[in-house]
Amino acid sequence: MTAKLCIGALVFPGFQSLDLFGPLDIFNTLSLKHPIELSVISTSLDPVSTQWKEGQVAQSIVPTCTLEDARTDYDLLIVPGGFGTTKDVDPYVDYIKRAYPTTGSVLSVCTGTRLFARAGILDGRRATTNKNAFNDVTPLGPKTHWVAKARWVKDGNVWTAAGITAGIDATLAWVEDKYGAQQATDAANWLEYKRTSDPDDDPFAAVRGIEDVLPTE
Amino acid sequence: MTAKLCIGALVFPGFQSLDLFGPLDIFNTLSLKHPIELSVISTSLDPVSTQWKEGQVAQSIVPTCTLEDARTDYDLLIVPGGFGTTKDVDPYVDYIKRAYPTTGSVLSVCTGTRLFARAGILDGRRATTNKNAFNDVTPLGPKTHWVAKARWVKDGNVWTAAGITAGIDATLAWVEDKYGAQQATDAANWLEYKRTSDPDDDPFAAVRGIEDVLPTE
Repeated sequence: MTAKLCIGALVFPGFQSLDLFGPLDIFNTLSLKHPIELSVISTSLDPVSTQWKEGQVAQSIVPTCTLEDARTDYDLLIVPGGFGTTKDVDPYVDYIKRAYPTTGSVLSVCTGTRLFARAGILDGRRATTNKNAFNDVTPLGPKTHWVAKARWVKDGNVWTAAGITAGIDATLAWVEDKYGAQQATDAANWLEYKRTSDPDDDPFAAVRGIEDVLPTE
Repeated sequence: MTAKLCIGALVFPGFQSLDLFGPLDIFNTLSLKHPIELSVISTSLDPVSTQWKEGQVAQSIVPTCTLEDARTDYDLLIVPGGFGTTKDVDPYVDYIKRAYPTTGSVLSVCTGTRLFARAGILDGRRATTNKNAFNDVTPLGPKTHWVAKARWVKDGNVWTAAGITAGIDATLAWVEDKYGAQQATDAANWLEYKRTSDPDDDPFAAVRGIEDVLPTE
């Protein structure tokens, strides 16, 4: 790791907190040794809350740049999930469409796949998503082979992680893919994280009783 | 879970992002079904950054209440770690001293133990901390039995988790302790988290080559 790594992360109202902070804390940690630039991107610079419904416990994070001002050539663009993905996220979908052709890799965590599916970047690909929301998400990608038993799926430069903490494993795999196994091991040890290194090692498809959904178009 | 659960979490400049958001996302999730109140507590209501040194990638979170205004009777008070624990956290230590006698349980994650040790609440107890920082932290608690091989330690109402992601396991154990195994299992499945249920199941003491430190006072 010598060249600066540029990471973008989208945040919208009702995103799932750990979908975002799992992956980002890996880059927080790596940035102690390597040059990294991070943009936390939203429609405005106002704090963005994870709150989905009234009374729910939530946190608010401060974006660092707007969708309009964000670069479109990140090495990695991270898109968290959460109940907010079911609401008005059109500006984020438009940004993904616009940025994808010039972005290195994209990674959705959990139901962040809703935005990827709507942007069309899962067409003709294999992907996975949150296992509890599997049957709600898969109809959005009729041209996608949805893999039930996967901690994450990598298809070309499109990475899709399963629910919430699977984003940590997918991010470590991305780091390994780009910088080698030692960097990923060091990061996992730093986080004291009992990493899943095998993308097919997923107990949660069985917990939810789901099966692969094949493309219908 | 019928009575409202009140959770407090301290945030200071240079806290470790995932130390906080791992535990909190468990309560975000539980709060979809059960009444929970969360205070994110700092010296002021200004956003608090995880940044420790210039150039490091960081996130900023918005506190919801000040140390001065925070209640002192939370059911659970969470204290994250991070490099910021080595700086001026005196007001936080004072708050812990003041609140501890009327707080249900306290949980430190990672080097959040620095604040607990300085507040004196680890005296005469068993505790653990981040394994990479073990030898830096343990001298702060000369009256503490520091356990090297532990994912977390519970001693009375004082919970101490090992590094970063161990906070997720300790929080799930706290939920199990208070509300039963099914609530903790449901939360882990929701997070798609491969939980460690045994507090002694810790591979990272061996990674760092550390051993227990016994009290000297």
